[in-house]
Amino acid sequence: MMTLAQAEQVIAAAKEKSKAIDTKMNIAVVDAGANLVAFARMDGAWLGSLDIAIKKAKTARYFDMNTGSIGELSQPGQPLYNIEHSNNGLITFPGGVVLKNASGEIIGAVGVSGSSVDNDHTVAEAGSKAL
Amino acid sequence: MMTLAQAEQVIAAAKEKSKAIDTKMNIAVVDAGANLVAFARMDGAWLGSLDIAIKKAKTARYFDMNTGSIGELSQPGQPLYNIEHSNNGLITFPGGVVLKNASGEIIGAVGVSGSSVDNDHTVAEAGSKAL
Amino acid sequence: MMTLAQAEQVIAAAKEKSKAIDTKMNIAVVDAGANLVAFARMDGAWLGSLDIAIKKAKTARYFDMNTGSIGELSQPGQPLYNIEHSNNGLITFPGGVVLKNASGEIIGAVGVSGSSVDNDHTVAEAGSKAL
Amino acid sequence: MMTLAQAEQVIAAAKEKSKAIDTKMNIAVVDAGANLVAFARMDGAWLGSLDIAIKKAKTARYFDMNTGSIGELSQPGQPLYNIEHSNNGLITFPGGVVLKNASGEIIGAVGVSGSSVDNDHTVAEAGSKAL
Repeated sequence: MMTLAQAEQVIAAAKEKSKAIDTKMNIAVVDAGANLVAFARMDGAWLGSLDIAIKKAKTARYFDMNTGSIGELSQPGQPLYNIEHSNNGLITFPGGVVLKNASGEIIGAVGVSGSSVDNDHTVAEAGSKAL
Repeated sequence: MMTLAQAEQVIAAAKEKSKAIDTKMNIAVVDAGANLVAFARMDGAWLGSLDIAIKKAKTARYFDMNTGSIGELSQPGQPLYNIEHSNNGLITFPGGVVLKNASGEIIGAVGVSGSSVDNDHTVAEAGSKAL
Repeated sequence: MMTLAQAEQVIAAAKEKSKAIDTKMNIAVVDAGANLVAFARMDGAWLGSLDIAIKKAKTARYFDMNTGSIGELSQPGQPLYNIEHSNNGLITFPGGVVLKNASGEIIGAVGVSGSSVDNDHTVAEAGSKAL
Repeated sequence: MMTLAQAEQVIAAAKEKSKAIDTKMNIAVVDAGANLVAFARMDGAWLGSLDIAIKKAKTARYFDMNTGSIGELSQPGQPLYNIEHSNNGLITFPGGVVLKNASGEIIGAVGVSGSSVDNDHTVAEAGSKAL
């Protein structure tokens, strides 16, 4: 079970990484039920990334994989084309990463948005390693 | 008219097939009015597939064809491009199959989600043959 | 953690009670994350009760109490007036009951709709006792 | 302009007050644009209060007053009857409080949900005093 303390650790690590690479991010953490536990929008981060960060976290937990992996499958002509229309809107480009506890169980996910998708993923991954 | 007993038969057959091919599925059955009759989420199945299974069942009944057939027509440049925006969200990749009674009348549809789209379709078809 | 087998037990017990008191119900079971696990609409049950049953189950888990208890507090002039506008719609009259495992932990909720609210609650409670 | 550091101060003060009065809260902070800046769900807090806390914060900023004050005006027969239908859902009972900077300008709002509305308001007010 995800605790608020764990979610705050993830956000703190993500914020640190975001500053280290000179970006401004929205960072969301959801629990195993895909419900929000904690959120932070850094000063000057894109407003539209607020919802994207939350949707990335949910999407990663919905399918227990990085959001970018789903995005490869949802392109035109690919097996999951337009899957984004489900679940009140998915975001399927990089920046959502699952969160595991010490025993390797998935306990939620983190979603990051505010820069290039590569940077978003880098920051999300840094957050995920805080656990 | 679809009965709950019929819907439960469909779900039981789909669950059996799902186990036989070692997958974990969300399975939804809708009636001729495209309204949910029965649903089951197998232990450990993807959470995001809950909504997708229901949307696949509805999509199949909305157009009385397998969801994958609609997906071929909704690609960029094709006649039904982005039809997924209608009806509060369609899912147009494989895994939704119409349900017919003994006399061949369409009485609803089954939607399955939780694995590859080929597996989803295989399980949905197994469910549809239970009637 | 709620298993599908547990959810099916709850639905079976609710169906049995529903038949015993000569009613036709929609029955929904959600897990601890308020996500649907299983659903059944009995033959001839009100179509509009489909969504109500699901919302009752979610509402009971959202606040870890029977839906009717919330409804007393959401009346005009009461402390939670119009709480129903949250969470994409709550249903706060009787028929939603929390589900506990053998050790007394809340693992989800059942929602029942299709008759008088007294009958709905009776059937939901019968379902909850199956665990 | 609300900074993330300010929002985190508000949440920290609200969490401290929540623990002091032995409650478990969802706490949301929005900026002057009524957009989420930071959020925290304390361990064991009601899941349904997640959305309510965010809606309370937005409601307080939408009208620059405590949510409870709006609730008095939205009762049957009162001037703002059923105003809750606007803005994708308002919450108009206590627990949402505006946030002001040192010069008295409104820079956002805090919303708290998870206990009685009196406790929710007490915790929100404690949060608001952190600035």
